[in-house]
Amino acid sequence: MSHPPFRSIGLIGKHGDPGIRHTLERLIEFLRELGREIWLEEETDRRIPGLGVAPLSIDKMARRCDLAMVVGGDGTLLHAAAELSDFDIALLGINLGRLGFLADVPQRDMINVLGPMLRGEYDEERRFLLDCEVGGKRRKAFNDVVIHKWNIARLIEFETHVDGRFVNFQRSDGLIISSPTGSTAYALSGGGPLVHPDLDAILLVPICPHTLSNRPIMVGGDSAIEIRICGNTRTDEVRATCDGQGILEPHDGVVRITKYPHTIRLIHPKGHDYFYILRNKLGWSEAPRHPD
Amino acid sequence: MSHPPFRSIGLIGKHGDPGIRHTLERLIEFLRELGREIWLEEETDRRIPGLGVAPLSIDKMARRCDLAMVVGGDGTLLHAAAELSDFDIALLGINLGRLGFLADVPQRDMINVLGPMLRGEYDEERRFLLDCEVGGKRRKAFNDVVIHKWNIARLIEFETHVDGRFVNFQRSDGLIISSPTGSTAYALSGGGPLVHPDLDAILLVPICPHTLSNRPIMVGGDSAIEIRICGNTRTDEVRATCDGQGILEPHDGVVRITKYPHTIRLIHPKGHDYFYILRNKLGWSEAPRHPD
Amino acid sequence: MSHPPFRSIGLIGKHGDPGIRHTLERLIEFLRELGREIWLEEETDRRIPGLGVAPLSIDKMARRCDLAMVVGGDGTLLHAAAELSDFDIALLGINLGRLGFLADVPQRDMINVLGPMLRGEYDEERRFLLDCEVGGKRRKAFNDVVIHKWNIARLIEFETHVDGRFVNFQRSDGLIISSPTGSTAYALSGGGPLVHPDLDAILLVPICPHTLSNRPIMVGGDSAIEIRICGNTRTDEVRATCDGQGILEPHDGVVRITKYPHTIRLIHPKGHDYFYILRNKLGWSEAPRHPD
Amino acid sequence: MSHPPFRSIGLIGKHGDPGIRHTLERLIEFLRELGREIWLEEETDRRIPGLGVAPLSIDKMARRCDLAMVVGGDGTLLHAAAELSDFDIALLGINLGRLGFLADVPQRDMINVLGPMLRGEYDEERRFLLDCEVGGKRRKAFNDVVIHKWNIARLIEFETHVDGRFVNFQRSDGLIISSPTGSTAYALSGGGPLVHPDLDAILLVPICPHTLSNRPIMVGGDSAIEIRICGNTRTDEVRATCDGQGILEPHDGVVRITKYPHTIRLIHPKGHDYFYILRNKLGWSEAPRHPD
Repeated sequence: MSHPPFRSIGLIGKHGDPGIRHTLERLIEFLRELGREIWLEEETDRRIPGLGVAPLSIDKMARRCDLAMVVGGDGTLLHAAAELSDFDIALLGINLGRLGFLADVPQRDMINVLGPMLRGEYDEERRFLLDCEVGGKRRKAFNDVVIHKWNIARLIEFETHVDGRFVNFQRSDGLIISSPTGSTAYALSGGGPLVHPDLDAILLVPICPHTLSNRPIMVGGDSAIEIRICGNTRTDEVRATCDGQGILEPHDGVVRITKYPHTIRLIHPKGHDYFYILRNKLGWSEAPRHPD
Repeated sequence: MSHPPFRSIGLIGKHGDPGIRHTLERLIEFLRELGREIWLEEETDRRIPGLGVAPLSIDKMARRCDLAMVVGGDGTLLHAAAELSDFDIALLGINLGRLGFLADVPQRDMINVLGPMLRGEYDEERRFLLDCEVGGKRRKAFNDVVIHKWNIARLIEFETHVDGRFVNFQRSDGLIISSPTGSTAYALSGGGPLVHPDLDAILLVPICPHTLSNRPIMVGGDSAIEIRICGNTRTDEVRATCDGQGILEPHDGVVRITKYPHTIRLIHPKGHDYFYILRNKLGWSEAPRHPD
Repeated sequence: MSHPPFRSIGLIGKHGDPGIRHTLERLIEFLRELGREIWLEEETDRRIPGLGVAPLSIDKMARRCDLAMVVGGDGTLLHAAAELSDFDIALLGINLGRLGFLADVPQRDMINVLGPMLRGEYDEERRFLLDCEVGGKRRKAFNDVVIHKWNIARLIEFETHVDGRFVNFQRSDGLIISSPTGSTAYALSGGGPLVHPDLDAILLVPICPHTLSNRPIMVGGDSAIEIRICGNTRTDEVRATCDGQGILEPHDGVVRITKYPHTIRLIHPKGHDYFYILRNKLGWSEAPRHPD
Repeated sequence: MSHPPFRSIGLIGKHGDPGIRHTLERLIEFLRELGREIWLEEETDRRIPGLGVAPLSIDKMARRCDLAMVVGGDGTLLHAAAELSDFDIALLGINLGRLGFLADVPQRDMINVLGPMLRGEYDEERRFLLDCEVGGKRRKAFNDVVIHKWNIARLIEFETHVDGRFVNFQRSDGLIISSPTGSTAYALSGGGPLVHPDLDAILLVPICPHTLSNRPIMVGGDSAIEIRICGNTRTDEVRATCDGQGILEPHDGVVRITKYPHTIRLIHPKGHDYFYILRNKLGWSEAPRHPD
């Protein structure tokens, strides 16, 4: 089954990568040959000037274009996804180097791969973001919201509640609240499981918990999660961080996490295989062999 | 919201527990006072004779009764659930000793707790079972299907496929394929996460994998999972075990696991709290305290 | 085999515990009846005034007394041990509440237990401390030195060297360098093994390492360990913390850890059993039982 | 510092590897040119006939030669080490393919590497083996003794004692008792730490323990370890396996493990670096890089 072709394309580039200009130039030339309308995200235009494509704010791009091509890596795509999540625009990631979990179009082969995709030959999946609320401020996270100690050496103390029910009191370095997308990121380093992106679930991974029987826990995707700082921990000793960037201080001691109402349309080359990416990224390359 | 009362009740008892006779006697007396129809599972009748209740095969019980009361523990309930899973009968577990993950009506307080439940005041949840197929033979598992080495000391080699897609090749002691219900059982000892029973997901936990980056993975509940013995491993060096009991040899080297089409109706006292049971069973009793 | 009796005893009390005064009073009365010389650590005297015992600085106490009785818990003993480590004074811990890993004389039974110990009937063991050097400043740690990210949300990057040999480059939340004593503290939360206190070994436990095959590693007790901040990490994004307290900033990017030259003489009631304490503290209370 | 040259060399080859004959032929030619006395282990001679070197039983080789060259991999060396451990002969491993933890002379570069080693330019280390006693039978293990369930699906129950002291009762799939050498083998898959080979320590790693707080534990190298089958477990449901091979049934329910009195002399090319091998084998190849 194929989709309608993409007509208007927004380009977003990773800043600071030496190879990015050349890749964008080739991409622009290719898209022009195909007669596509092209826009350049204004911050990318400011950092990599002279590409000869009209700049557009990311908000306008989200309304005007039907596809955002993010050139960089998973981090760049993560950031763009949070900004574009209120709109229906599709997202596609071109990785400059190693295969990404999200950015799975290799730069070196992009012309061959993008041709069919632009004509509508692609796989599409929906990914959800997390919505984090701290003292009235909201942030979005594609991977994870992390509650962690700040400026102190000792453990923090907090309670976790899910849908109004008390889950546990915990002394630990913090807690990772992860979407399925984020299960291959920080949550994995913390000992969490891999979670297939199709699953409607949220993963909670304690960081160095004091109680040894405290384990990662998966709850439903529609859960309302509430973290309440308590015990001997002051709120200024804690931060909530969204995708490793937006750092919020929970002045009133409470962090609330739910699924964000809009999902992301992530598109991939036809035949996209999540397990292939897992094997590749995690080094599961071991083949059957004779015992030593 | 309340349910219609239960009218016809089947009793299933754990064999070999010294306190079981007395508990069944009290239960029978109580149910008679309430004017309920009562039947005794025939194997229970044979092992604990003289209770004065008409025996019935478990199959007939499943058709005749609207509630099965299982007196014993999680193991007894697990076993009964696999046998009753094709029918619409509700299941309720009375634990003789410690609180169970499934059997959550305490024997010592059962008269007070059961009164309202029999009148329709209860919480109900649906749990799914796994269906395991090995060489044409099928077995059901409420907790888990375990693929494990048999009669050998060294690792076994096998491939995992999900929905026809290759996941990985693995050298390990085996693989635990677990329902959310089973996530608190063997899968937890193997390093798997806790999975809320509402989730429609299947958990795969490698046992002592040779590749250190091999991790537990959660896939959708409707996944078709296939394990293929390969490499240097002979099929007689492998077994598939369902809930720790039905031991099958995969003569043709393939084990297939899917969700079983019918779900179990598990009922609990009103206000049932999964997290309370987790805290209680896992010793998450630590309260906020002053640092030492 | 028995030891010479203790003659001159220094008392050190945990500050801020409500039951401490009463315990100290009983202890002082008991020691006076036995005719022992008693001194009170001057900070304890300041916080809990009116105990009627002559105050002494901890340094003078270390020279004057042959036994320091620490009343509080493991934290109080940890702190005292670091201060007394240059001297030959014996240490004994009285716990006010729960059994400690180090403070294993229970307050409620202390009179019975201390009698024989003061006469020389006790078990003695030597524990070593770690010596941490950061930019010319030195701190001691009984449990652990922790290298950890500070004021940032993302991972830190550093190299580990042992005896001048490169071990690995690591992106993680940090690294726990632990003595055997510390193996039951933070290192255990981070996934490290238990290490018998008799072992002459240092344990390195990565905190949430980015590389999944990165594991805790045990090296010889005489190893010279060097951590070098590198890559994208600035030195002000890192701290080295000794026993959760002394927080040092590695301005020159290097933290050096070795065994401290003097050991601690920790004394216990006769028949002291490390495994009993492990079982008790870790909840290994499970007894053989019949299957469910 | 250099050692006396090796004069009489025994060759042991891995059976069943296609490249082994050619490697042995080159090695024999090289050793003849150097004028060394050469012997071929008799089993190797039987499997790879026609090499033109006089065969010798491994026992006689141990007495006659001052160096055993093991051509194969870690498994072949492991096996040879157990057989040669009573003698003072040095061991050296030539790996046919990937670098081994033990066999660290690469076949492709062996002529260059072996020249200086034969002249006495090498690094030497002592490794200890474990001695396993079951019902009067003794076996040696270089890596590990594994106590594991046999022919059953459920957990086994046993007690661990160290130096006559009760450590814990455990329900699990088994227990790995590992030397430092074995810490990179099965113990690592079971969640144990890496242990530097210089350490005089024995590592105990529970396999899928029922109690979540049960963790790997390191005890002194001179510990007398005793495993006692108990509870509901029959002795025929348990086996003790040494280095994955010698499978013993503990008829009387007891397995005893101590350090074997003689050590192995393992020799390496000058500049041998344990951490280099760890990095290489565990894929710790990640270099500092710019964040995505």
